Amino acid sequence: MAQRILRVDMDDLKVKEEKVPDKYKNLGGRALTSQIVADEVPPRAHPLGPKNKLVFAPGIVTGTGSPNSGRLSAGGKSPLTGGIKESNAGTPFARGIARKGIKAIIVEGKAEKDKYYLLKLDESGGELVDAREWLGKGLYQAFQELHEEFGENIEIAGAGIAAEMGASNAGIAYTDPEGMSSRYSGRGGLGAVMASRGLKFVMAEEPEDNNVEIKDEETFKEGKKKLAKALAEHDVTKKDGALYTYGTSVLVNIINESGGLPQRNFSTGSDDMSAEVSGEKKAEEIKKRGGVESHKCSPSCIIKCSEIWTKEDGEDPVGVLEYESVWALGPNCGIYDLDTIGELNRACNDLGLDTIEMGNTIAVAMEGGLLDFGDGERALELMDEIRDKTSLGRILANGTEFTGKAFGVDRIPTVKGQAMPAYDPRPIKGIGVTYATTPMGADHTAGYAIAPEIMGVGGKADPFDTKKGELSKGLQQATAAIDSSGYCLFIAFAIMDIDEGMEGVVDTVNGVLGTDFSVEDVMQFGQQVLETEREFNKKAGFSKEDDRLPEFMKEEKLPPHDVVFDVPDEELDSVWED
Amino acid sequence: MAQRILRVDMDDLKVKEEKVPDKYKNLGGRALTSQIVADEVPPRAHPLGPKNKLVFAPGIVTGTGSPNSGRLSAGGKSPLTGGIKESNAGTPFARGIARKGIKAIIVEGKAEKDKYYLLKLDESGGELVDAREWLGKGLYQAFQELHEEFGENIEIAGAGIAAEMGASNAGIAYTDPEGMSSRYSGRGGLGAVMASRGLKFVMAEEPEDNNVEIKDEETFKEGKKKLAKALAEHDVTKKDGALYTYGTSVLVNIINESGGLPQRNFSTGSDDMSAEVSGEKKAEEIKKRGGVESHKCSPSCIIKCSEIWTKEDGEDPVGVLEYESVWALGPNCGIYDLDTIGELNRACNDLGLDTIEMGNTIAVAMEGGLLDFGDGERALELMDEIRDKTSLGRILANGTEFTGKAFGVDRIPTVKGQAMPAYDPRPIKGIGVTYATTPMGADHTAGYAIAPEIMGVGGKADPFDTKKGELSKGLQQATAAIDSSGYCLFIAFAIMDIDEGMEGVVDTVNGVLGTDFSVEDVMQFGQQVLETEREFNKKAGFSKEDDRLPEFMKEEKLPPHDVVFDVPDEELDSVWED
Repeated sequence: MAQRILRVDMDDLKVKEEKVPDKYKNLGGRALTSQIVADEVPPRAHPLGPKNKLVFAPGIVTGTGSPNSGRLSAGGKSPLTGGIKESNAGTPFARGIARKGIKAIIVEGKAEKDKYYLLKLDESGGELVDAREWLGKGLYQAFQELHEEFGENIEIAGAGIAAEMGASNAGIAYTDPEGMSSRYSGRGGLGAVMASRGLKFVMAEEPEDNNVEIKDEETFKEGKKKLAKALAEHDVTKKDGALYTYGTSVLVNIINESGGLPQRNFSTGSDDMSAEVSGEKKAEEIKKRGGVESHKCSPSCIIKCSEIWTKEDGEDPVGVLEYESVWALGPNCGIYDLDTIGELNRACNDLGLDTIEMGNTIAVAMEGGLLDFGDGERALELMDEIRDKTSLGRILANGTEFTGKAFGVDRIPTVKGQAMPAYDPRPIKGIGVTYATTPMGADHTAGYAIAPEIMGVGGKADPFDTKKGELSKGLQQATAAIDSSGYCLFIAFAIMDIDEGMEGVVDTVNGVLGTDFSVEDVMQFGQQVLETEREFNKKAGFSKEDDRLPEFMKEEKLPPHDVVFDVPDEELDSVWED
Repeated sequence: MAQRILRVDMDDLKVKEEKVPDKYKNLGGRALTSQIVADEVPPRAHPLGPKNKLVFAPGIVTGTGSPNSGRLSAGGKSPLTGGIKESNAGTPFARGIARKGIKAIIVEGKAEKDKYYLLKLDESGGELVDAREWLGKGLYQAFQELHEEFGENIEIAGAGIAAEMGASNAGIAYTDPEGMSSRYSGRGGLGAVMASRGLKFVMAEEPEDNNVEIKDEETFKEGKKKLAKALAEHDVTKKDGALYTYGTSVLVNIINESGGLPQRNFSTGSDDMSAEVSGEKKAEEIKKRGGVESHKCSPSCIIKCSEIWTKEDGEDPVGVLEYESVWALGPNCGIYDLDTIGELNRACNDLGLDTIEMGNTIAVAMEGGLLDFGDGERALELMDEIRDKTSLGRILANGTEFTGKAFGVDRIPTVKGQAMPAYDPRPIKGIGVTYATTPMGADHTAGYAIAPEIMGVGGKADPFDTKKGELSKGLQQATAAIDSSGYCLFIAFAIMDIDEGMEGVVDTVNGVLGTDFSVEDVMQFGQQVLETEREFNKKAGFSKEDDRLPEFMKEEKLPPHDVVFDVPDEELDSVWED
């Protein structure tokens, strides 16, 4: 079956198959979602209005057997930032879509008010069936019911209760290998874009035949081998390595030690209590509870940084507790208890909320006096406000900046309306340059300067050095390319340090596409993706003045290093020079 | 006493007197507040954060005996738009300040959390006294208590309950001649800027000596006479003229007739029911009830478009029901009952809310399903949610865009975050150009194209003609100058049509300042004010893409004329050409 694009018209409830235009042939993942959004969505469109679109696209290598190739991008105009958004996830759903030969799904138009549909993908395209029975239901339960009704082998993308409200912090949940709603295109509110079209779920069963076409099998195989070898060798990604053993939460102690782990709404960068929620502590607990460690989020993964966290008695499995989620719902709220964090995370997965944004939201509500820092019990009650769609729930589900405004708070850790991840940019300047300048709003994955600044991976950079424009730019280019490839970003640790790994990535991409790209071409390709996104944002009303961190980080010193964010605006502007 | 600037340091609770710098000598009102904000507030500052400032400045002729010279400007960075804001009002407080020889009051810094102060102006400057006893009290009651405690002759500026929450739709209330809180710097949330400094009230007693210095009495007197003559002659402003007889609500029937009176959240431009809330109807009711018609909002007024609206039994006087307020809280919410509108307006005045923004907020909440269009009873209950500072109240008090987001609405009639006034820009294009391009966010007073487009004042323009860049620009320049002069904008009707009136304005300004400005100089001066404001907004992150109307107005035809807003972006950009 030739690769194709599915266009889902929610006005008329029709699914059409389209040939892949030549200009999209060599694109995948983020490159493809961003290009389609730039081509088809008016930049000044209201994110929940009739002209916005939601685009899903697996990466170029997604669905092949290459290691860690299980990523899918979702894209659209973000209700959270007002700019272009790409948010990718590792999930078996990605492979399901890719192996059907689907290059992209474009969801457009809006169903009648209060009508919701489930898009069932099948051999002939897909059909839309009534999904109203799942309105107001948590996603763990909904996914389970969908599996019961449509079979155990289906993979699902779903919009949750938060999305039903049109809330700006509504993500898109995907099935994990156990069928739970723990994998996310979390950031930027794309769940609300989905639900505002009237689309509640997309469901795909993996076909018997793999329809991913590999144009040059030889080059592909060669590349795959090189990449697998690099991943197996690198300290961060190897079996029994840091990610394998402790998951991403291995960073809790490391970043706390560096003085850059924000606590209590970015009030200090270090607290001894953080050890209570470290990766080491978590691994120990999982062992005791009989959860699963060293778990794959999607079929082809060999890094296995995922896990299954449960309650103390082994009940109510959550899925993975990522470092970012643990931090956001934990230390940043003054909460140092993994069980509370686990329940908060489960509530986010269940309601369809991004954990980073939600943790920041709670922290800002704490600063605004709605509850006290550290009050995990009350924090859990707040999740029920969202579940019940109360007015308070509507405030919280709209994210950090919104909640800050509702409670009159002026210390709001956002860029372009999106809340910051688990690294304070004051003592780690490079990540701050990425937060400020990526088209995505504050986003660590857009250009992960933490690797060279703290981990010594991909070179070494002094975290306090303010000359970080060049570093962030290179990382953002590489990331845009990786986000388009279908590979998990975590391969970056290995390929930044091991040249053969980098070659492996480029070889597999060339193998699939039948192209002859060099490493330099790939970086250039990343730059093009970024420029497409920047151009959209510019037309949406962004200027270089939006490439800035919030005021309080330039004024307020962060303990223990007692530093402000002092990267000059000129250095920030040097990233784009436009 | 020489003119001076008062600097109120809320960090240290000190009031300092400063000499007026030469560069500010010839500025007043909007020109002065905008210049001080541009000079002293970092454009990226958080509006509620420590670096924002609130500036009050009477106009150049305020406090002289010239007709309609009772205006005061308030300025700062707006929590509603994120840009610069000037919001002016006619109030006896203006004269009180001006006659003390105060050129401007600059309020900066922030008092300790939860502490609130009253600034008592006196001969030696002023002092800050504890004002916490008025927290949570409605402004009608608070102003009354302040009069009881400090004397009947004091004039007051106050921040209300909405401002205590840091809400973006919190205005600054001023005393009317009866001492009620019915005069407003309503737009843009400056009340929240005030309260976030810890300032609850400013109180001034008019001094025995008038300290407004008139450098050239002869020229001033000459000008005053010319202006008074023009105002007395022009159909709109004369005694027994339209404004005198029916107040500003005379426009209800006129704009409804034109098809440009938005009803039910900008869904149609005309409805026969609007006659129920017309100026004619209101005047009739006021007569019956024994309220006051043809009332001055401030001492020097000779137009007298104000009034005192009361309940049917003559109780609970509101103050004026302006056209904009009647429309916003009435037809735009599908409410066609003056008593309900009166109560809603009283609640806005009492809570410290801008009526235009509040009416739009209710209408958008209606569209989002919180209540039905036309449900005045429920609308009144919503005002109590704000009074009680509930979560729903916090949503509503943050304005139209915020409420739309909370309820997932995509038809939001705002520009730069500020809700539109009572003229739909689809059948009246020129006012749309003003909404789009003024630095203030959607604001009719910024360049009142309605005069030539509908009223045939200041020339005639076809409301459907899309070539309105030049028209709006000229009006914006003239308005910026008038807003700086201290004159009420309503003098514009007379001075646009009667050359002698225009000369009178320039003469009185020259008389006060001892200058020799020409009419052309004054327009040039207006342009400079606008450029200062534009430059601030640019540094705050605005681009020309923000000079646009919301998407739905370009897509959705407005009955009865069934037209969209089709002014090309190039025409909008022609206003500023930068």
